[in-house]
Amino acid sequence: MAKKTAIKLSKRDIQTLENLAGMANRVVAQAKRKKDPAVDIPVRALSNVCFNDRKRIIEMGKRTSQRQLFNLSQAKSFMQTMLVASGTKQLIEQGKTTSIRGLYYLLKHTIAGVKEETFDEQGDCDPIIEDCEVLLECLREELHLYAQKRGDMVGEIVLTDKGDEIDCSRMGSGGYGIPSIVEPDVIQFKKCSAKFVLHVEKDTVWQRFNEDKFWSKHHCILTHGAGQPPRGVRRLLYRLHNELNLPIYCLLDNDPWGYYIYSVIKQGSINLAFESQRMAIPDAKFLGLRSIDFVRCKLSDSVKISLNDQDRKRAKQIAEYPWFIKKKAWQKEIETMLDNGFKLEVEALTNRDISFVTEQYVPQRLQEGNFLD
Amino acid sequence: MAKKTAIKLSKRDIQTLENLAGMANRVVAQAKRKKDPAVDIPVRALSNVCFNDRKRIIEMGKRTSQRQLFNLSQAKSFMQTMLVASGTKQLIEQGKTTSIRGLYYLLKHTIAGVKEETFDEQGDCDPIIEDCEVLLECLREELHLYAQKRGDMVGEIVLTDKGDEIDCSRMGSGGYGIPSIVEPDVIQFKKCSAKFVLHVEKDTVWQRFNEDKFWSKHHCILTHGAGQPPRGVRRLLYRLHNELNLPIYCLLDNDPWGYYIYSVIKQGSINLAFESQRMAIPDAKFLGLRSIDFVRCKLSDSVKISLNDQDRKRAKQIAEYPWFIKKKAWQKEIETMLDNGFKLEVEALTNRDISFVTEQYVPQRLQEGNFLD
Repeated sequence: MAKKTAIKLSKRDIQTLENLAGMANRVVAQAKRKKDPAVDIPVRALSNVCFNDRKRIIEMGKRTSQRQLFNLSQAKSFMQTMLVASGTKQLIEQGKTTSIRGLYYLLKHTIAGVKEETFDEQGDCDPIIEDCEVLLECLREELHLYAQKRGDMVGEIVLTDKGDEIDCSRMGSGGYGIPSIVEPDVIQFKKCSAKFVLHVEKDTVWQRFNEDKFWSKHHCILTHGAGQPPRGVRRLLYRLHNELNLPIYCLLDNDPWGYYIYSVIKQGSINLAFESQRMAIPDAKFLGLRSIDFVRCKLSDSVKISLNDQDRKRAKQIAEYPWFIKKKAWQKEIETMLDNGFKLEVEALTNRDISFVTEQYVPQRLQEGNFLD
Repeated sequence: MAKKTAIKLSKRDIQTLENLAGMANRVVAQAKRKKDPAVDIPVRALSNVCFNDRKRIIEMGKRTSQRQLFNLSQAKSFMQTMLVASGTKQLIEQGKTTSIRGLYYLLKHTIAGVKEETFDEQGDCDPIIEDCEVLLECLREELHLYAQKRGDMVGEIVLTDKGDEIDCSRMGSGGYGIPSIVEPDVIQFKKCSAKFVLHVEKDTVWQRFNEDKFWSKHHCILTHGAGQPPRGVRRLLYRLHNELNLPIYCLLDNDPWGYYIYSVIKQGSINLAFESQRMAIPDAKFLGLRSIDFVRCKLSDSVKISLNDQDRKRAKQIAEYPWFIKKKAWQKEIETMLDNGFKLEVEALTNRDISFVTEQYVPQRLQEGNFLD
């Protein structure tokens, strides 16, 4: 009898381990050939990011920079890169996952013979993790690292999560807490009668929709990400869209932050452009709130929140994003907000009636097919 | 046939409506007797808070201040108090709940005939909500107002949430998202084979415990509150403790913030002292991390995080809390941290091994019964 249960590696894990071994083998081969060990790391900077018009997502360019062992200014980060890679290999082989904070502590130690620490602080480790992601062409989750866990889901879908069957239409007022790792070896979709996904910005708005059983009346899935959705929520929306062909409708605030959240869901994040191809949903639609809603929904002056300088600056920056700049409707949307001189929160609709948003606003937008793209 | 489904009021709702009507009737009676309408509002300030040694919770004192309609400096807040009371009455009668943000928008309008707003900003409304809570002796949740929703639960308990049966031992990696309102008319405990509750500070640590199926091996319930637990989590822990007799063990960081979280769970919050009797858990135990853990767990120097001035100041303040000042073990705990000159996060234990915290640290503390009280 085996003393220790053998860890069953998923196909994804085997692939990631191969990538890790490949990188290590290249370094070893260089050393054996008496060449200076080095790795080529794709540049993660705005200068190496572009918008792919055809795929409609943010992509990384092809620029790389070399990180060498025998280079005084690069030796430490070379060592850190190998250390992070070896740490994630250990996690995968053990069948365990951890947070980026956990990995930092796992790898942090005083280097033998000197007083130097491998990492002085979390900020030293995080960019190296991102380097390893691009270097190995793996998502963080595939390296068995998890991000913060936020966001909940209810609606007409049955899934399994680590083998447990979860019927999201029987989750009461609390809902199913969306995990941070939602890859297919963890989460499998079993049965889905939902016709679309409604993603709302805030947990408080989500509670309103859940209480009014919106998802049951309109046959949908209801998610939130407690603000800017964390990676788990984005990746889950991506999978729901791509595997189950569900349209994704976003109900966000009528302010630059709401626009930005939409931009990240739709086109990907600028900082982590390499993830876009597995996270971004170019077909996601912006359902509201819209700058015309003050008039369209006959809201009272009381709900206006004046734009401040920061809001105006951010709005203008967002209007310049390559994926917004060519869209007349978006240009008009942002212009109208600037002309209005105020922003509107989804909760402002409460001013009409407590369930105006669930019973009138969203159903009307859906019926009219009235979205921003 | 009735056109509109009649709202079924719970016992709790009927009681709350009676309290609301009582307050309104007293105001009306004053007016009829040609007396100036006024309400007596319990003072919510540190000066009116004391620690009840017998009950071991923070309580509000008996001081009240009068809020009058015919008083130039109090007329507006008198009006706001009536407005909030009437808004919550409306919510209860409609069988709906909303966030404090939602209530603010619901009640915000320009007062007829003048340019004055009922509320200028959220900050004007929040204290009035708290006034109504103490005035009516109702928790916010009983006024149908919900707080932010954070935190997840897994473990050996089956409950119903709005009629849906939720088996927390079959919730995969995501868990059951703890609702913000967990009163008995929403959540009922059906079956529980758990022997205790392990409450951890962070979602990332919770994920580690859930992945290692700690709750199954040790027959417990596992919760987190994403930092300082929100009201829903605190109230749920309270109910688990008081209705199911489950001990509550808290795994928090070894720093002033961790101490403070424990203090709020155990004795209640100073700002909202009137809630303590239905939220505070005087028997909750602090399982760790402890100031002795650097030595006890043979941690490496690498995991130390130096205390800053703010940490030292907060630690000294907390040591002076009446419920800590008489406890030698707590005085020693805080003193040791100050002597150490560093703090420790739960994640620091990762430095020993990825599952050290779930396989050794917590099981040992539980076996030894080694907690701070």
